[in-house]
Amino acid sequence: MAEMKVYFDHNATTPLHPEVKKEMIEAMEMFGNPSSMHSWGREARANVEDARGKVAAFIGADEREIVFVGSGSEANNTVLSLFVCASSQCIPGGKLRGTIITTKIEHPCVLETSECLAHRGARVKYLDVDQYGKIDLDQLAGMLGDDVGLVSVMMANNEIGTLQDIETITKMVHESGAFMHTDAVQAVGKMPVDVRKLGVDFLTLSAHKMYGPKGVGALFVKKGIPYCPLIRGGHQEFGRRAGTENTLGILGMGRAVEMRTLEMQEEEERLLHLKQVLRRGIEERIDDIHVNGHPTDALASTLNVSFMGVEGESILLYLDLQGIAVSTGSACASGSLDPSHVLLATGVNAELAHGSIRFSMGRESSMQEVEYLLDVLPPIIQRIRNMSTAYIKGGLHAATR
Amino acid sequence: MAEMKVYFDHNATTPLHPEVKKEMIEAMEMFGNPSSMHSWGREARANVEDARGKVAAFIGADEREIVFVGSGSEANNTVLSLFVCASSQCIPGGKLRGTIITTKIEHPCVLETSECLAHRGARVKYLDVDQYGKIDLDQLAGMLGDDVGLVSVMMANNEIGTLQDIETITKMVHESGAFMHTDAVQAVGKMPVDVRKLGVDFLTLSAHKMYGPKGVGALFVKKGIPYCPLIRGGHQEFGRRAGTENTLGILGMGRAVEMRTLEMQEEEERLLHLKQVLRRGIEERIDDIHVNGHPTDALASTLNVSFMGVEGESILLYLDLQGIAVSTGSACASGSLDPSHVLLATGVNAELAHGSIRFSMGRESSMQEVEYLLDVLPPIIQRIRNMSTAYIKGGLHAATR
Repeated sequence: MAEMKVYFDHNATTPLHPEVKKEMIEAMEMFGNPSSMHSWGREARANVEDARGKVAAFIGADEREIVFVGSGSEANNTVLSLFVCASSQCIPGGKLRGTIITTKIEHPCVLETSECLAHRGARVKYLDVDQYGKIDLDQLAGMLGDDVGLVSVMMANNEIGTLQDIETITKMVHESGAFMHTDAVQAVGKMPVDVRKLGVDFLTLSAHKMYGPKGVGALFVKKGIPYCPLIRGGHQEFGRRAGTENTLGILGMGRAVEMRTLEMQEEEERLLHLKQVLRRGIEERIDDIHVNGHPTDALASTLNVSFMGVEGESILLYLDLQGIAVSTGSACASGSLDPSHVLLATGVNAELAHGSIRFSMGRESSMQEVEYLLDVLPPIIQRIRNMSTAYIKGGLHAATR
Repeated sequence: MAEMKVYFDHNATTPLHPEVKKEMIEAMEMFGNPSSMHSWGREARANVEDARGKVAAFIGADEREIVFVGSGSEANNTVLSLFVCASSQCIPGGKLRGTIITTKIEHPCVLETSECLAHRGARVKYLDVDQYGKIDLDQLAGMLGDDVGLVSVMMANNEIGTLQDIETITKMVHESGAFMHTDAVQAVGKMPVDVRKLGVDFLTLSAHKMYGPKGVGALFVKKGIPYCPLIRGGHQEFGRRAGTENTLGILGMGRAVEMRTLEMQEEEERLLHLKQVLRRGIEERIDDIHVNGHPTDALASTLNVSFMGVEGESILLYLDLQGIAVSTGSACASGSLDPSHVLLATGVNAELAHGSIRFSMGRESSMQEVEYLLDVLPPIIQRIRNMSTAYIKGGLHAATR
């Protein structure tokens, strides 16, 4: 039996905040359709709009700039797709520029949608990243031009936690006349995010990454920006996303961001300390490891480490037996045998990428949990390496650029 | 103060079944991402797959044929859009036939998506309906041909409750080599629906129309049928709909269909009786009315009545003051000043269509509530007619075909 239950997979999803649970349970009595004109409907409408106000305030937006959707993936699909739909007359004012620039380390919902759009008339260009996962602003400058309609760069990477300088990127993008989108699913709720300061035209956020429910996200769409719904046929969300509102989920999201406002700052400092202890502990106790991601410009909660000569999946399963939840990359790519596209883009070779583990902590994470992990992990790595023919002590040097 | 609270707007949305509430509250402790490989994730995955099995069993499908989505609207958008995406190479095996046939009385999420697709290369044809809202099978036969890829006909109309003969329609559609979709959002949970008996290739259902939560629906996709995701970039739902699963919502939906299995049949008979009492009561007590929809081939729970010389919105608001919730048409079109496209399609003129009210009852509806409504409604109609210059007693004859 595991001595402790340790959940270090907050980038995959988070537990509901107790206050969110309370809010959702209370809201179960309120069942009206927000589109109905009677009092049942008006009550639901008022509550949805209240939650919209909270989400807007949390990222410095106006209420009318928030579109509730079913997931961060839906929000990202919506933004990318509108640039193709636009080419086919749905946008008042006509065709948008057809080239999209994104990065090689985006979430699959951006990368796969981009590939699909490339079959539907869009031209897509992919930015490289350096060894820490940062994009090269000179490369971006070279790609921008009057054919580019949209640039989509994630704010914080889900696998390695690296942050991009969205404010600077947005200025460059706007100077070229393109629109700017950032997938901020992993950033919002973990660090301050202000859409006006960033200057972005579109920003994606998700409730379940910040102690809210799964099945609800939001898309910030700056006032006056061209838009075309992905899901159409109802006036909901100001005509921007059809379908009866997920009232429980939306109210849960509203409460989640309220709690983030209260708890986030103090937590960020605490988690950064835990991460430093975890990182130092791993470095001291385990040989032939490689820490992925940027040393400073990164999420406080996320540590990604490659262990030479070990399959990440084996580590994950051994840790699970000890009651510890971690991830080999993103949950959305689990089950895939391909090495992480993010790590490959940073120059880590396929073998080392296969041996990578993401530790992502959150509001309930404690020093005691970090210490438990540091006790449990070294013998697991040792045991796997002892069984493996692939591990040669000191063989790390050739595996990264 | 209202003497009673009467919710007669179940076609807009339904309250959560007490068992669904219980299930969702218990499930709030289970927070793993179903895509995660550790025990938290595996627990969530097992629960989602259990719910999938329940939904599949409820409509006679296999588990792998159920795709969980965020709403009925999303399901309908997905089916229609794949016929356009197919034209642009995303479907293995190549292009599908580009003509879509649907009806003039579909939900806006079908009609508006069809209009959008018409801008994106699809050809769309619309079937007329008779005075009861039934499509004409001869007209369908004339439209079918080797250019038609998809026929989409709703099973039960949301505004007037009229049922179509999906089994017969599907046979005709398949003989012509096209695929068949039915939006069964208003049918599933109110009457037996078996996808094998119907023979359809795609079928849309929604949890919140049958005492489940808002923000979750499902699309039945028959095995071997061409498919292309609307939201892409994750392996969720067997690669058919990206985005972290709405675990709470999906579990709620699973429990909702279980309860429907137990309660639906008895309820249907009871509601049909209530509707007959309500209809007779209105006919006896109020002059110059027109009952919309089919007299027998219709949902047991839905009664749509046009009141000559009266604005439906006024009736709705007066009834709301008396504690009674009804609708002027569909919630998804509320706020619109246009008369119902469904009623216009049945030949009701615009003036009479404006005076229409939908009464939709459900599992908590009682004879006492019907009697209260029958006490309250006639004086309301009388009062509005007294204030109106538009009402001329006996003026109904010219208002319908």
